[in-house]
Amino acid sequence: MRILGIDPGLQTTGFGVIDAEGSRLAYVASGTIKTSAVAVGDLPARLKILYDGIREVVTRYQPQCAAVEIVFVNVNPQSTLLLGQARGAALTALVSADLAVSEYTAVQMKKAVAGHGQAKKEAVQTMVQRLLNLPGVPGKDAADALGLAIMHAHARTSFEAMSRSTTLQRRQHAQFKGGRTY
Amino acid sequence: MRILGIDPGLQTTGFGVIDAEGSRLAYVASGTIKTSAVAVGDLPARLKILYDGIREVVTRYQPQCAAVEIVFVNVNPQSTLLLGQARGAALTALVSADLAVSEYTAVQMKKAVAGHGQAKKEAVQTMVQRLLNLPGVPGKDAADALGLAIMHAHARTSFEAMSRSTTLQRRQHAQFKGGRTY
Repeated sequence: MRILGIDPGLQTTGFGVIDAEGSRLAYVASGTIKTSAVAVGDLPARLKILYDGIREVVTRYQPQCAAVEIVFVNVNPQSTLLLGQARGAALTALVSADLAVSEYTAVQMKKAVAGHGQAKKEAVQTMVQRLLNLPGVPGKDAADALGLAIMHAHARTSFEAMSRSTTLQRRQHAQFKGGRTY
Repeated sequence: MRILGIDPGLQTTGFGVIDAEGSRLAYVASGTIKTSAVAVGDLPARLKILYDGIREVVTRYQPQCAAVEIVFVNVNPQSTLLLGQARGAALTALVSADLAVSEYTAVQMKKAVAGHGQAKKEAVQTMVQRLLNLPGVPGKDAADALGLAIMHAHARTSFEAMSRSTTLQRRQHAQFKGGRTY
């Protein structure tokens, strides 16, 4: 399963691609998409850079699903509106490429990667480097995106384990019930 | 010049297509894209409906440019974030189809269509019906979208008139200057 993690932002969007096989994780690629090439006020042009960038990552690395960070309201309502539009463009790039999208909060990602939800950026970077056996420390935005992909790999594994245990319990339960209707 | 107006919203997005030749306007199509077919909480799926809907309108009516309403921060920050994401998806659908996008506030649109920026929804609907010579009153979201397309047609005409007058002034100015260097 190849997973694409996206940490959306209007100025900088981080992306990270990993392969997950059970609990084994392998790094594929990561980086950032920056919209600074066009004027700050030209929102349509900035969203186009974001959309085109994500579509290029999808075309090049062919992920099977995506994990995107859930953003929160900012103290500045105008920033909230801009971040919302950037995230809308990022989600649209993914769903228009027919990718299934899962959403996680930064707290969930930090818990999965660094052990606790209030972990600092640096701790996330170090843990991502360790978990993916990288030769260097990834940048902050790329590390967050890789962290989201790792979070999704964990969630999938837990979900599969849970499905298996549920099936097992149901089978045992059925046998037990069977045992009582003698 | 065929213009597509878009009034973005997460639940309902209005669209309106008109042809503008100088000051002559002709209605082409209008309607709404509703995202109620999927669960309210499934944001990626809702944005996909919005994106696909706008792309379908673009493919069917082949507009040459688009006008999108500028949205404002809501009293509820969470609503601001959701509206932002919907508008981001709408803008992305337009720019990914290589359409030039202009942005106008509701006040600008109302001034252009109904004469003053605080006009009520019903006044916009009636004036859009009159300006486009429609047999019936368009729905509120469609009327707003058609109003944005009309606003853009006006802005283009004014801009062209301004360019012409500027050219004329420059020419006269050059002659005047020429007249002085005897």
